[in-house]
Amino acid sequence: MMKKKISAGILGATGYAGAELVRILLRHPAVELAALGSVSFAGQTMGEVYPGFRGLCPIVCEDAGGVIAKSEVVFAALPHGLSQESAALCVEQGKKFIDIGADFRLEDPAEYERWYGCEARYPALHERAVYGLPELFRQQIAKTDIVGNPGCYPTSIALGLAPALMSGLVETAGIICDSKSGVSGAGRKPSQNTHFPDCNENFAAYKVAAHRHTPEIEQTLSGAAGSPVRITFVPHLMPVNRGILSTIYARLRPGVTQEQLRGVYAAQYQNERFIRLLPPGSEAAVRAVAGSNYCDIQLYTDQRTGTLIITSVIDNMIKGAAGQAVQNMNILFGLEESAGLDMIPMPF
Amino acid sequence: MMKKKISAGILGATGYAGAELVRILLRHPAVELAALGSVSFAGQTMGEVYPGFRGLCPIVCEDAGGVIAKSEVVFAALPHGLSQESAALCVEQGKKFIDIGADFRLEDPAEYERWYGCEARYPALHERAVYGLPELFRQQIAKTDIVGNPGCYPTSIALGLAPALMSGLVETAGIICDSKSGVSGAGRKPSQNTHFPDCNENFAAYKVAAHRHTPEIEQTLSGAAGSPVRITFVPHLMPVNRGILSTIYARLRPGVTQEQLRGVYAAQYQNERFIRLLPPGSEAAVRAVAGSNYCDIQLYTDQRTGTLIITSVIDNMIKGAAGQAVQNMNILFGLEESAGLDMIPMPF
Amino acid sequence: MMKKKISAGILGATGYAGAELVRILLRHPAVELAALGSVSFAGQTMGEVYPGFRGLCPIVCEDAGGVIAKSEVVFAALPHGLSQESAALCVEQGKKFIDIGADFRLEDPAEYERWYGCEARYPALHERAVYGLPELFRQQIAKTDIVGNPGCYPTSIALGLAPALMSGLVETAGIICDSKSGVSGAGRKPSQNTHFPDCNENFAAYKVAAHRHTPEIEQTLSGAAGSPVRITFVPHLMPVNRGILSTIYARLRPGVTQEQLRGVYAAQYQNERFIRLLPPGSEAAVRAVAGSNYCDIQLYTDQRTGTLIITSVIDNMIKGAAGQAVQNMNILFGLEESAGLDMIPMPF
Amino acid sequence: MMKKKISAGILGATGYAGAELVRILLRHPAVELAALGSVSFAGQTMGEVYPGFRGLCPIVCEDAGGVIAKSEVVFAALPHGLSQESAALCVEQGKKFIDIGADFRLEDPAEYERWYGCEARYPALHERAVYGLPELFRQQIAKTDIVGNPGCYPTSIALGLAPALMSGLVETAGIICDSKSGVSGAGRKPSQNTHFPDCNENFAAYKVAAHRHTPEIEQTLSGAAGSPVRITFVPHLMPVNRGILSTIYARLRPGVTQEQLRGVYAAQYQNERFIRLLPPGSEAAVRAVAGSNYCDIQLYTDQRTGTLIITSVIDNMIKGAAGQAVQNMNILFGLEESAGLDMIPMPF
Repeated sequence: MMKKKISAGILGATGYAGAELVRILLRHPAVELAALGSVSFAGQTMGEVYPGFRGLCPIVCEDAGGVIAKSEVVFAALPHGLSQESAALCVEQGKKFIDIGADFRLEDPAEYERWYGCEARYPALHERAVYGLPELFRQQIAKTDIVGNPGCYPTSIALGLAPALMSGLVETAGIICDSKSGVSGAGRKPSQNTHFPDCNENFAAYKVAAHRHTPEIEQTLSGAAGSPVRITFVPHLMPVNRGILSTIYARLRPGVTQEQLRGVYAAQYQNERFIRLLPPGSEAAVRAVAGSNYCDIQLYTDQRTGTLIITSVIDNMIKGAAGQAVQNMNILFGLEESAGLDMIPMPF
Repeated sequence: MMKKKISAGILGATGYAGAELVRILLRHPAVELAALGSVSFAGQTMGEVYPGFRGLCPIVCEDAGGVIAKSEVVFAALPHGLSQESAALCVEQGKKFIDIGADFRLEDPAEYERWYGCEARYPALHERAVYGLPELFRQQIAKTDIVGNPGCYPTSIALGLAPALMSGLVETAGIICDSKSGVSGAGRKPSQNTHFPDCNENFAAYKVAAHRHTPEIEQTLSGAAGSPVRITFVPHLMPVNRGILSTIYARLRPGVTQEQLRGVYAAQYQNERFIRLLPPGSEAAVRAVAGSNYCDIQLYTDQRTGTLIITSVIDNMIKGAAGQAVQNMNILFGLEESAGLDMIPMPF
Repeated sequence: MMKKKISAGILGATGYAGAELVRILLRHPAVELAALGSVSFAGQTMGEVYPGFRGLCPIVCEDAGGVIAKSEVVFAALPHGLSQESAALCVEQGKKFIDIGADFRLEDPAEYERWYGCEARYPALHERAVYGLPELFRQQIAKTDIVGNPGCYPTSIALGLAPALMSGLVETAGIICDSKSGVSGAGRKPSQNTHFPDCNENFAAYKVAAHRHTPEIEQTLSGAAGSPVRITFVPHLMPVNRGILSTIYARLRPGVTQEQLRGVYAAQYQNERFIRLLPPGSEAAVRAVAGSNYCDIQLYTDQRTGTLIITSVIDNMIKGAAGQAVQNMNILFGLEESAGLDMIPMPF
Repeated sequence: MMKKKISAGILGATGYAGAELVRILLRHPAVELAALGSVSFAGQTMGEVYPGFRGLCPIVCEDAGGVIAKSEVVFAALPHGLSQESAALCVEQGKKFIDIGADFRLEDPAEYERWYGCEARYPALHERAVYGLPELFRQQIAKTDIVGNPGCYPTSIALGLAPALMSGLVETAGIICDSKSGVSGAGRKPSQNTHFPDCNENFAAYKVAAHRHTPEIEQTLSGAAGSPVRITFVPHLMPVNRGILSTIYARLRPGVTQEQLRGVYAAQYQNERFIRLLPPGSEAAVRAVAGSNYCDIQLYTDQRTGTLIITSVIDNMIKGAAGQAVQNMNILFGLEESAGLDMIPMPF
């Protein structure tokens, strides 16, 4: 590849999403990893934080300013509220900014402030930011320089349910999203409920009908339906490292068949490299996507109750975070959308 | 204890439910474990099949006839279809029969034949059998000699939802039951999807809207509601050994508050030794009931969508099988209902 | 049971060993749990810290003074260094003291200070304390009022190797102890290496040839051999909640056969309620002892290299901590040694 | 890449090692996956056996003859005894053969027959086969056309111990190898001891001092030492999917220091792309190599007992099987030895 590589920087490189991003970008054919930012591990290399990186990445972590200066595109994997300054700095300097955090996902700054409890300090940037779900917003993403990379739960739910809502084959009321997430979704920082003996051999719901991803999910689904959609969203913590499975329930419009729905999904996703609509008889399983950028989707219709049941699985840290961020970067720079994302799920 | 102990026998003692039952009965103050039945392990002791039992149970497994002859009460933990002959034999000989399998759970023999694909050969026994969910059918159980011990999923769902339906505070239509089960529910026999490397770090739904527990669940819920109830039931396999968590969604009748519902549940379960209605702010977790006969229940109301959300957890092999069977035995023999069931959940 | 129950108190009740002890003592036929001590959770009940205890233990945690005042026997499950004051107070008040921590395990105060880096402030108490491994020191334990309850690794290794050393059938030089522990051994406090995503699907050695249990192990083995024994001890962290498996390697004296060794072990342990010498052909497995006070031991001889291989498994929190402490209490009070310890390992 | 790709075929493609090999070769820059062989799944694609492969590999499994006909290099991942015919056929047809199974690892056919209980039917092929451990036998591998790919345990032990033996800094007698393997090492076929509820939360040794990898390990170590070496080898099954950690114990020759040993290892492995000698203070962990072709090695000296302790970790299915096979293929065809093996371990 003769043409110059894109210099990329990562803020929050030592968190789980950041580390996964480092792992993907180190092998991206068109990218040169230029700088890594970390507050907690400034002065250290990835190998000192994650032994698996030993000998594979000599970059020493530095502060945000240094990272932005060295990069054409900056990824931010930071706690909410902390991306805004960097985003402003990047735009100012004509750089592209991809926020893996939550600061630029919600179109309505008021919603952001209500759910996240922090101020949306740059309304203009919010205006400008595009929600980075390529399968639905590819064109808009290609034109922006600030991407709000979707949350893990919203990615699994929006990809699973959008075609049904766009087609008008299901009711917009009474939608239930029952999601199960691997523990990596809780981040790298230890806590009591992620302490191995507490978390292992355990399973529970959390933030029932109160999770911050709710407005983000409803924003996307409302757009797909063309009218306001309210969902009941219940996340659960499952004792695996990676993966999200969302089981989605919607009421079928009278007379709608599974065949009609399969036709709609097949048409919507026929050219999508990372979405696999499963054949009848197989189940969407976390194992089949873990370690990859794929989203596997299965459809069922319960004619006894007139319910559409959708199962949608992703790797929460790849299609649900770092992988999708790279997919967005590929779009921003006019690269092959799957560049650097050819990971094959582990067979076991 | 002067008074003579009850002699108990177990058919299918070497399966998971059978083994759990042996473990409970060996320590039951009013029971003498008299005989164990096994086809695959006839001539062997439990310790040869499960090393943990080494030195703790000298009984040698024999055939069904021998077990019935030695026992006042016979527990059957057999694949469906295989309990009927033994039940008939027991009734004939004036013994009590508790079927942990599915042969005597459904009141309507036709439903049984439709869902299980085997013949209900003794309509009279079906007539006579009582569904063994003590918290709802204690009086009837006390009067019978054949108990159809509930399935694991139905136990978690019926206990979680019945009070809401009995009170009429929720709609009977549109109920969703999203259940997650530990792998012991699949039994002791190895299979590809329970092979450790396939099952570990994996999560998936199975038998979506087609699981055999569906009619059993609907039978109980319809009784509670006083009118036919149809549910959408989706079971999932989670990579833990024990436990079931059911997340149940029902539509609130207009104006119903969480306080009203809590009042109804508190009243319904105030004297129940094995049901713990959790205080607001805590989550029902598999860990908190694993190894015990408890069912923990939590209630949430999503006022944004008018939805009641119930989480109900049990140990699938104890309250969902062997423990509940012993609870039923205690009722049949007029013992303290919690006799032999004082297991405290492991803290970790 | 007419006779008055023994009032027992626990310092450090909310740690893992303390919680396991609460669980055992709540069901002990001759004990009344009188008081619980906790610094971090003073004013709270066990159920607020461990949901599994909800409704099962109304005792509110208080400070050490209050616990000691209410108890005839005090168990301490505290970080090293913190038991000494309470021990002194108990002895002064004529109460019995069982230290689950490390303060009273080493006979030589200098060794204690070298390995634990804290001062042995009460030499007289050290003198008086007995090492609480009942299978080897039952008589001495019966006569004392301060017990130093053995560590988890030392229990598995001493029980596995002592008979071979006592019999003189193996060399005292070149002994290797390769131990694997479940994560509960690291305690309840979260840390990076016990964070679920880091610990799960991982396995590593730690504190190689530098673990604090080394002098304790050598003290017991030297006593058994009648001459100083030095071992190489390497602990590993395995991704399970409970259990320790120690694989022990010793050089066979010339001409020694497996039969001779089996004879020695059988004789040594023939009357031991909690030790199971496995028959040839079976393997000592964590599963077979988890949740119980048993120690399973298997012997192998590698005639190609003249090596005795011993595998010894225990539940690190029961026979390795709380269960053994109760076994010691039973001895101190002249009760049946197995009182309250009739837990049967879970079959799965 | 203009030059023609190497056409590769896999016999036993649907087993775990075969599937991992498919996954690696599908992304190998110089290889075209030409054919897959499977007896159990003839007529099916990988995606039908492993859902993760859906849409990624259209090749339909066929019989051995077809695979060999289409390939320049044939990998065999078959049960022992079944590779010999295919190897003979390949050599006859001037193709290269890499046996991931055990048929060509032992130089002495008699040893092979003794430990594996099947006949070495082609002594000439045995003569010709080279043991495929590149770090020790690179030159010989480059010259052959039949490679006996090392077993998983032998790879971790030989790489960990060879330099110490070659340098003469340790005794050749009294070596102990205590290895722990992930469950994928047991293969894809379900069995009782790999059934999730039995295997999960369990840990045990197996085939103690009787595992078939013993002669293979001793063959390599004897070569390194220049004199016959006998070891005590005890494998254990740990409840993780991937990885082997071997803890190796050897007696230090008098006066040998850790610095000397580190110097020897650093010199031996300085140019090895896949071996990482860890700096003092860090631990070799399964997590840090899982999913990659790396072998991480750490050294400790226990001066109290004069013992060298080595921990060596690999991914049992990559450096221990499929990855090493590809490394050997790269050598056979004069490619960059790391071609197609640039996998970075997952950070979590």
